Amino acid sequence: MKLDTAVLPPPVKGFRYSGVHGGLKPRGRRDLALIVADRPAVCAAVFTQNRAAAAPVVVAREHIADGQAQAVLINSGNANAGTGDKGLRFAHWSCRELGSRLSVDPAMVLPCSTGVIGVQLDRTPFARAISLAVDGLSRKGFGAAARAIMTSDEFPKWAHRVVETGEGSITVAAMAKGAGMIHPNMATMLAVVTTDAWLGGKAARSILATAVAHSFNRISVDADTSTNDTVILLASGAAAGKPINGPAAEGYGPVAAAVTEVLDELARMIVRDGEGATKMVDVRVEGLADDSVAEQVARAVATSNLVKAAFAGADPNWGRIVAAIGNSGVDCALGSLAIDIDDVVLVRSGDLVSEQARRTARKAMQADSFTLRIGLGRGSGTATVVTSDLTEAWVRFNSKYTS
Amino acid sequence: MKLDTAVLPPPVKGFRYSGVHGGLKPRGRRDLALIVADRPAVCAAVFTQNRAAAAPVVVAREHIADGQAQAVLINSGNANAGTGDKGLRFAHWSCRELGSRLSVDPAMVLPCSTGVIGVQLDRTPFARAISLAVDGLSRKGFGAAARAIMTSDEFPKWAHRVVETGEGSITVAAMAKGAGMIHPNMATMLAVVTTDAWLGGKAARSILATAVAHSFNRISVDADTSTNDTVILLASGAAAGKPINGPAAEGYGPVAAAVTEVLDELARMIVRDGEGATKMVDVRVEGLADDSVAEQVARAVATSNLVKAAFAGADPNWGRIVAAIGNSGVDCALGSLAIDIDDVVLVRSGDLVSEQARRTARKAMQADSFTLRIGLGRGSGTATVVTSDLTEAWVRFNSKYTS
Repeated sequence: MKLDTAVLPPPVKGFRYSGVHGGLKPRGRRDLALIVADRPAVCAAVFTQNRAAAAPVVVAREHIADGQAQAVLINSGNANAGTGDKGLRFAHWSCRELGSRLSVDPAMVLPCSTGVIGVQLDRTPFARAISLAVDGLSRKGFGAAARAIMTSDEFPKWAHRVVETGEGSITVAAMAKGAGMIHPNMATMLAVVTTDAWLGGKAARSILATAVAHSFNRISVDADTSTNDTVILLASGAAAGKPINGPAAEGYGPVAAAVTEVLDELARMIVRDGEGATKMVDVRVEGLADDSVAEQVARAVATSNLVKAAFAGADPNWGRIVAAIGNSGVDCALGSLAIDIDDVVLVRSGDLVSEQARRTARKAMQADSFTLRIGLGRGSGTATVVTSDLTEAWVRFNSKYTS
Repeated sequence: MKLDTAVLPPPVKGFRYSGVHGGLKPRGRRDLALIVADRPAVCAAVFTQNRAAAAPVVVAREHIADGQAQAVLINSGNANAGTGDKGLRFAHWSCRELGSRLSVDPAMVLPCSTGVIGVQLDRTPFARAISLAVDGLSRKGFGAAARAIMTSDEFPKWAHRVVETGEGSITVAAMAKGAGMIHPNMATMLAVVTTDAWLGGKAARSILATAVAHSFNRISVDADTSTNDTVILLASGAAAGKPINGPAAEGYGPVAAAVTEVLDELARMIVRDGEGATKMVDVRVEGLADDSVAEQVARAVATSNLVKAAFAGADPNWGRIVAAIGNSGVDCALGSLAIDIDDVVLVRSGDLVSEQARRTARKAMQADSFTLRIGLGRGSGTATVVTSDLTEAWVRFNSKYTS
């Protein structure tokens, strides 16, 4: 599935970008991206929960401890994961190398890698690639950077919002690469958000945490979390206006909403771009005690292989949905269960409405996106998890001998 | 995949069996099974953890509370799940109906159902089927019963052991149906173990719990737990010998081992029979602090779609294995990671041994069964989880519109 991503975000004040073919990947494809702030920027980040975190994740975690960063260095094609101490030394070295080129402290550089696991990177070509990327830095390099972080992605992914304030405008622009896996070991999800908002460190962290919880953490493609997943927010503070130090500050709400919306857009693009996926499904659960148990149920349904295979076949198989709800671990009385597919009423009071409803639901499920709405009638908690279908093509791509 | 299951178990003293076509399923296929003890038998059972447990599970849980049962009544083709109060009344009625035919207390009957979810059963044909099944009860009816509980299974599943004691022999014979799903809503795993051992109630419960933990709870086919999963152990006490009331009793060890072995055989047959599955893989994890964390890691690897797809393609993709280990939530230093495929040494000290090893491993993975051995060098805890590969055929079967 292709999305129209031709319109680039407007420039974000205080940032330059670059994306080059540095010779790390074959066939002239871009493989090194830089995102550089004119001066130290306020920074927040969310990293993979995978216990086998890759070397760049370990180093980026250290470098972000002070809440500031000036450059993000991303290479695609090699994840620098499962590479032990040598990989760790490489990640540190790459920060020193870029730092010396930019005349910034190496601790202000955040390294990210995505690609094959278990292969060491070479310093000589990497140094050359860094040099090329630094030379290519530009206010208009956003698109090139977004292309350089792609691995198995079919299309580059970016999104933006402009927030108008009394004192001018604030821009939020983000790029991402997907979790879809044609090629093994390339499941990494990376995203970098740049904004010229004047954010305090605490505000940046809370805005990013909320946005990730409602976007990347609400999608399911492979169910596996990669060793390299990273989301970074950099705020230059170069836009006009007052500092935004917390939820009470003017501007906090609109900027927080913009970041959440942008990441939600990117998360949906990642689902759309899942190799072999033909459908994007919003699994919406309503009527539980609170949002967190609703999310638990939505996640169980959205990650069930049997439910996802039924999506692929446009099969309104509500028995599988019932079984998946039961597997969530949440106590649900199913006597008041309601299931809708878009505007088709399929199940009420725990029972199929009619054979006709089943046929109509089947038609609705043939669309390339639809909403599965599950009502449990026990409270006001709601949650949505966005998922893809599980197709034969997914298995074909992922069972090819390519490691 | 077909296994040779032609050899029937020898008779188990004190039991009669029956399996008939009662007209509940089309095309003359057997659809009702009975397992009846000559007198009240000591009984233990393990039921599904799915919160949307089916009506027969609810009723069987009640009827087993006193640790005794005399008959197991199993219908295939309809799960009596998602059927609300009406389904519950049906399950109770079926116990009364069989009870009156056998002149036993309805509370001594354990009902089990497997098949489509969300469809009510009809009493009239069911009563006729019960009548046929009661007429067909025989000491030699084991095979017929094992066939009558099949749904999407390609072959019937049974296994047995004869334990020789100083005072004679004890027989353990069990039947099962699988969790593979060509047809939607037929994921239920059922198993009934009959033995003529003279077991106390507590001994029966602990023997069954241990056996299930090391067999059915150590396999992964669909990752989804059905609404109807049930394992029942009936002990008639009709064999010669002294009562076995606990681990200290003579005979406890051999009988416990026999039950575990029989259920392990059946569990492996279920994996083999998973529709679309072409391989059975023992995921063996060694070298963690204790068995339970080893099991957590083995389970994470055995249920990863990416790892299972790599099995299908005979791809020794150790990067995916590393990522799955990281996703287990267990802290594993991967510096001492070792991976073997059967006797092929693939990874040592966290690194691929050689390209030659990768090629040899690929050949080993083309077999229809192999062992993936993961060593973590941090202790003596071990665990094995048996899984299947994830193939295009699995998705094809499960995405067909058949609900």
